Amino acid sequence: MPKRPDIDGPRLLADIETLARIGRDPSTGGVTRLAFSGEDRAGRDFVAGLLAELSMETRYDAIGNAFAVRPGAREGIVLAGSHTDTVASGGRFDGALGVLAAVAALRAVHEAGMTTGWGLGVVSFVNEEGVRFMPDMMGSLYVRGSLDTASVRSVVGIDGMTVGEALDRSGMAGTDDLSSLPVRAYLELHIEQGPVLAGEGIDVGIVTGVQGLRWMRCRLEGAANHAGTTPMSGRRDALLAAALVAVEARALTREIPGLRATVGQVRCLPGLVNVVAGSAECTVDLRHPEAGELDRAWHAAIERFRGACTGEGVAIEVEELAHAAPVTFDPGLVSALDTAAAARGLTRRRLLSGAGHDAQILQGFWPSAMLFVPSRNGISHSPLEYSSPEACVSGARVLLDAMLALSAD
Amino acid sequence: MPKRPDIDGPRLLADIETLARIGRDPSTGGVTRLAFSGEDRAGRDFVAGLLAELSMETRYDAIGNAFAVRPGAREGIVLAGSHTDTVASGGRFDGALGVLAAVAALRAVHEAGMTTGWGLGVVSFVNEEGVRFMPDMMGSLYVRGSLDTASVRSVVGIDGMTVGEALDRSGMAGTDDLSSLPVRAYLELHIEQGPVLAGEGIDVGIVTGVQGLRWMRCRLEGAANHAGTTPMSGRRDALLAAALVAVEARALTREIPGLRATVGQVRCLPGLVNVVAGSAECTVDLRHPEAGELDRAWHAAIERFRGACTGEGVAIEVEELAHAAPVTFDPGLVSALDTAAAARGLTRRRLLSGAGHDAQILQGFWPSAMLFVPSRNGISHSPLEYSSPEACVSGARVLLDAMLALSAD
Repeated sequence: MPKRPDIDGPRLLADIETLARIGRDPSTGGVTRLAFSGEDRAGRDFVAGLLAELSMETRYDAIGNAFAVRPGAREGIVLAGSHTDTVASGGRFDGALGVLAAVAALRAVHEAGMTTGWGLGVVSFVNEEGVRFMPDMMGSLYVRGSLDTASVRSVVGIDGMTVGEALDRSGMAGTDDLSSLPVRAYLELHIEQGPVLAGEGIDVGIVTGVQGLRWMRCRLEGAANHAGTTPMSGRRDALLAAALVAVEARALTREIPGLRATVGQVRCLPGLVNVVAGSAECTVDLRHPEAGELDRAWHAAIERFRGACTGEGVAIEVEELAHAAPVTFDPGLVSALDTAAAARGLTRRRLLSGAGHDAQILQGFWPSAMLFVPSRNGISHSPLEYSSPEACVSGARVLLDAMLALSAD
Repeated sequence: MPKRPDIDGPRLLADIETLARIGRDPSTGGVTRLAFSGEDRAGRDFVAGLLAELSMETRYDAIGNAFAVRPGAREGIVLAGSHTDTVASGGRFDGALGVLAAVAALRAVHEAGMTTGWGLGVVSFVNEEGVRFMPDMMGSLYVRGSLDTASVRSVVGIDGMTVGEALDRSGMAGTDDLSSLPVRAYLELHIEQGPVLAGEGIDVGIVTGVQGLRWMRCRLEGAANHAGTTPMSGRRDALLAAALVAVEARALTREIPGLRATVGQVRCLPGLVNVVAGSAECTVDLRHPEAGELDRAWHAAIERFRGACTGEGVAIEVEELAHAAPVTFDPGLVSALDTAAAARGLTRRRLLSGAGHDAQILQGFWPSAMLFVPSRNGISHSPLEYSSPEACVSGARVLLDAMLALSAD
């Protein structure tokens, strides 16, 4: 009877450490591998080298999405992965864990000499972060057909270079087609980037979906006046109106369960100690796992804001900056991850992702689901990002087991 | 029987128009005569020329305060004036009205060939606005002995030049001593720079004092977190804390009658749509006519702010930026202005000044009081600043009559 495949924990941790050295600033510990840069290419070459050790050839599509497949007995592939690009001065786990855990799973199967039902594959999407070139999740949007090659190549980055130029310079583009693979399941292991699992001391999170999001900009017009001479009753204070928007947004989260509302940005003019602000702007970030509730929150927020501003004699204009519908992951895959975690004796809970991931773009194109491991203090996009060695290895084990279970079905 | 002196209204209005042309930007209508500039000098020379027509010689102290006296029968002087410097792109009435009305009063007395009891004088203080060189009300602070010549000359302006260099370049300094004049009363006519008189349709305001003022900066420290992944219950949102400071400041004005409270400035970091703000700063401007109530408001504000911030898990640090005690004008002079206004058949009300003026600095050094005329929409420090011809002439008439009444006592 062949050996049951298992993750080589020390090897996985060593791979995370090696990849983190590519693009690392020794003074801060921050890792910078902006999409399509030399560091990004070096990180991807490191992963291709790991796959070559498993006799797997890495192929690239026209915008640089990388993938490798280990064939099974039947047509169909269970794919796992994430991304290896980073933000500027980011952490070592965001994206990297998902790709290296998928490699570790394939290594386990390879070393066990096992033949699976469906084939198993590893994928590394390009430009998940969207820091240098907008939009984020560019690679998965391309795979599902929301972007075409020409439009991706023509995107101009923050440094003035186009994706096309950066792709040609880095040599990351290929001629293979990731989107035509017979993918039966896409699984993505990721750090939570939030405080829930660490706060509750739970081993792994079974991600059932991604919250929907709507962003609003409020423009507030009152009247600038002298702080000393203007009676309180005659004021049209735009800064106070912005304050009331923030307070009303918070109050709305107590009215609509599951709503997250954040006013993260505020500006006012003239912005002087002794002048009542004549105009102000603020943003409101609303998130909810259910599309209907998100829309209800959007309209209720506007109604509350208008009421508060009218009371202060301040005019409000609302503009929608972004709108992303909630995503529900494939229930069969969610169940497979849950079963695998339970079989490993891990504590687990179902939760929603607050952050954006390639898996939410792919769900609907490929059956997709995600697994989270705890992030210390919920911190990511920072050199302080940290997930424990045990968490990384446990996450990789659940990923492996779920891939094998799905492949065997 | 000699003719009773009266203001030459058309002449006063013509003088206001002529002075407003010095430093005016034709495209905006804004007037710019920053202290100690060539435009400031030209404005002051225009006033000296008007006084020369009345056979009055203009003298200057060591920092450029200008004054001229018409002797009376007894020792003692009733002085009137204001300032002719402006903010950048200011209006045509702020300061200018008070100086030109004093000139108009002296013109009336001169043309009537009258000998007064006490002498009558005109004063034009330097650098009331404090835009180019801090502090504001520099000229009156110097007269009352709060600043000495060396410290004034060493002040560095926003353009890098010192007051000493600017004074020497403009030739505005003299060798006479304004502070040693036997001043029995200082009267200042000014536009209200607030909405009260215009709003109530009242002819003149009898100013009984100036509100006290305390300025606070609040530094708020929470925790920056992902807007999508951080549950509402675990947040330490510094922007929401700043919003609560603004709301609590407004609420405090309903608890303490006569209090004015303004949050005019707010900043937050990182200031992104999708990140809970980790830190924020805001200012609070508190004003009250009574010192005890102002201090009570200060402490009550801090207590409210601390309570609100603690509820959000946000630390607050408070720094005092400015503190000016309330001023009560000389009751005899207030009464003289009121009597003069009544005798002219003008509607009037007593009120407090919200803005700062030379008269509040001088009260206690010289017996002082102020008279206001309505400002359309309360607007000042703007090309939109406007007081009607009738208001300007009525104000000058009350000033003249009060000067004569005081001089005769």
